[in-house]
Amino acid sequence: MNNIIGKTTEIIEEKELRERIGKLADITGSVYKIRKMSGFSFVILRTARNLIQCVLDTGNITCEELCENASVKVKGMVRKEERAHAGFEIDILEIEILSLPAAEVPVVINNREVKASLETKLDYRVITLRNHKERAVFKIQEGILAGARKFLMEKKFTEIHSPKIVFSGVEGGANMFGLQYFGKEAYLAQSPQAYKQMMVAVFDRVFEIGAVYRAEKHDTARHLNEYIGLDLEMGYISSFYEIMETETAMLQTVMAYLKENCREELELLEVNLPAIDSIPSISFKEAKEWIQKEFNRNTEDDYDFEPEEERLLCQLIKEKTGCEFVFVTHYPTAKRPFYAMEEDGDKEVTKSFDLLFRGIEVTTGGQRIHDYHAQTEKMKERGMNTEAFESYLMLHKYGIAPHGGFGMGVERFTMSLLGKTNVREAALFPRDMNRLVP
Amino acid sequence: MNNIIGKTTEIIEEKELRERIGKLADITGSVYKIRKMSGFSFVILRTARNLIQCVLDTGNITCEELCENASVKVKGMVRKEERAHAGFEIDILEIEILSLPAAEVPVVINNREVKASLETKLDYRVITLRNHKERAVFKIQEGILAGARKFLMEKKFTEIHSPKIVFSGVEGGANMFGLQYFGKEAYLAQSPQAYKQMMVAVFDRVFEIGAVYRAEKHDTARHLNEYIGLDLEMGYISSFYEIMETETAMLQTVMAYLKENCREELELLEVNLPAIDSIPSISFKEAKEWIQKEFNRNTEDDYDFEPEEERLLCQLIKEKTGCEFVFVTHYPTAKRPFYAMEEDGDKEVTKSFDLLFRGIEVTTGGQRIHDYHAQTEKMKERGMNTEAFESYLMLHKYGIAPHGGFGMGVERFTMSLLGKTNVREAALFPRDMNRLVP
Repeated sequence: MNNIIGKTTEIIEEKELRERIGKLADITGSVYKIRKMSGFSFVILRTARNLIQCVLDTGNITCEELCENASVKVKGMVRKEERAHAGFEIDILEIEILSLPAAEVPVVINNREVKASLETKLDYRVITLRNHKERAVFKIQEGILAGARKFLMEKKFTEIHSPKIVFSGVEGGANMFGLQYFGKEAYLAQSPQAYKQMMVAVFDRVFEIGAVYRAEKHDTARHLNEYIGLDLEMGYISSFYEIMETETAMLQTVMAYLKENCREELELLEVNLPAIDSIPSISFKEAKEWIQKEFNRNTEDDYDFEPEEERLLCQLIKEKTGCEFVFVTHYPTAKRPFYAMEEDGDKEVTKSFDLLFRGIEVTTGGQRIHDYHAQTEKMKERGMNTEAFESYLMLHKYGIAPHGGFGMGVERFTMSLLGKTNVREAALFPRDMNRLVP
Repeated sequence: MNNIIGKTTEIIEEKELRERIGKLADITGSVYKIRKMSGFSFVILRTARNLIQCVLDTGNITCEELCENASVKVKGMVRKEERAHAGFEIDILEIEILSLPAAEVPVVINNREVKASLETKLDYRVITLRNHKERAVFKIQEGILAGARKFLMEKKFTEIHSPKIVFSGVEGGANMFGLQYFGKEAYLAQSPQAYKQMMVAVFDRVFEIGAVYRAEKHDTARHLNEYIGLDLEMGYISSFYEIMETETAMLQTVMAYLKENCREELELLEVNLPAIDSIPSISFKEAKEWIQKEFNRNTEDDYDFEPEEERLLCQLIKEKTGCEFVFVTHYPTAKRPFYAMEEDGDKEVTKSFDLLFRGIEVTTGGQRIHDYHAQTEKMKERGMNTEAFESYLMLHKYGIAPHGGFGMGVERFTMSLLGKTNVREAALFPRDMNRLVP
């Protein structure tokens, strides 16, 4: 019998190496690039988060097998070098090869950019993600979620994980993936809507970060069929504006978190973080009229925005207020789900909102109906079978506070933040109508 | 146009109210229980995390509609009261009803325990979770994951979210849920194994907290068909013992986090947190022999433990070392997946481990094959079609450091920690062969 004690090797980041100038350091990494010079080689290592420039004195150290994409362990002296990007280099004293590739990569991944079509990048995602700029996207995506979680935990939201195999869809059901579940018909959840509402009755405020499924036959630059949803729901709200205020505060924390924790990645991708003092809000109706007037443009959809209208509205808002976000409120009841609460005194519109960011919708939210009779009445008006929703309606029947929330598409938000033109670039292993691999 | 500023109402917890004795407080909550006395009523409010005892002077304030499960807003004076559990009560000055239930609950939820069968509890999960003890399970589960995440982020693991709709299963495929994906056969991922390995080549250390699917026809107290997996994978390991050391350190942080952040829930559920100085480790072969010898017992499975053997081993280890955890190492190659690395000089066993906790397996892990030729050879030996794994094998072909990791079933860990006898009690909305609702 052995005893396993708790310990973990530390990963040394660039900023920590900078503190060790004049000292020895042991680092591990994958050989990103080798540049042979006269009598020595530059060996650039890709470590967990950085590219570290090492110098191999080829006159003194022979390492014939060394090649790009080899995994190595290096002992070296950290030497100040102002010409190096990091301000230092590592003079290699010992180098050990831990693992070798079996072939050369079919796509060049060690230039500043991966110069390939999006299709090729995605086909070779397993290796193109090893490019320093490609991977930075997902370090920032991690930061977006970490910042949001930090805010939500401070505000005493409880994090939940609800099932994704469900018996029915609250949102409709037309756009759901079906599967056989031990002889029963089941579906993949198209949102945690029902569960997060149920959990408001348990913890008052909840959030979930998890997979969301939409079987929509959309083949566009902004749709994915599986994506990461950041969903929250909060009870005891006095109006749906409180949800928008919460989202605004959350986004402020996200930006501050990114500034503090992802500085290098933001610089690498040349990202300008949007300033968020406050976010302007405009009703759907007003926004439609404004766009029509300003651009002398007819709309084809009275109940929703066309993508071009979202872009134009963001342009108008930015010109007028400087803000890159805009809340659009009071969407038509006809286009919102059965659980959306209608405006007091105007059944045609709902206490709902979308958040648009740099021309694209990133969040949908609103206040939900909490009264049992109001909810069942509305479902009957829509021809829905309330019996099929028995467990969902337990929420209302046995008492639930006024509540509401929102859902954000994390890849889409990342895409807008990083100025990418296709949401697939912000999805680790995207799932669309044609892509199931890798 | 409005301007939405960032702000959120604060939730006031019991410990914060205790600081406000002699002052006014505004709180919101659901009426958990009303106890009518002569001239006044005790009104117990269930707030986000506590049960707060309020006193309603029924002589002065009339609130006829007040009933259990109503959602209310209260303004009151916080008064020191040593007989109250919290050390204070709130004298209600104003009370406003925000929402009323439409019916009385069919299961009593405001006693200390929900006295009902597990089946009933789960059928009425939407309301039984409102019981103070039932919900505490999930506050602790949140704490387990938050503690693990805290540790992993400190150790510079990157959090990822991999797709759950996959084209094939790394683990085998027999126990997978199938679905139609735009005319293609697809499956629900039975682990993020392939993706976390791919991402080690990108970020060196990664973890994921997400849904895992097993279509196993097991109807036992310890199996779920959808569960939360806590998965990690780390590169540049010098041996698979490093993974066990990391897990030990992670569990130490988890226990410290729970002690600091979930004290009230731990007391409520009378949980004894296990001490973890170090965790004993024993080989599978030694463990089997020890159990056979100590209990004069024959085994029916030479390649794995029977559930009873897991229980007996934990009993022996606890008697001998005092520890409630035990790592079992070197599982037979025949029972481990194709990506498991074999022990140097002994192809019959793998560099693998399970972690058992209080009689049940909670983690499976090990070192993976990183060499391309070794991996493809082993797959061929097993009669696998390497072409179908082309994208997975890009990982090895283009170079990957020695690496390994583990997967933990979060509900099962929660179950063991809380001394529950059925894993369903530690699953928010469990999915098993017979249960798809709610």
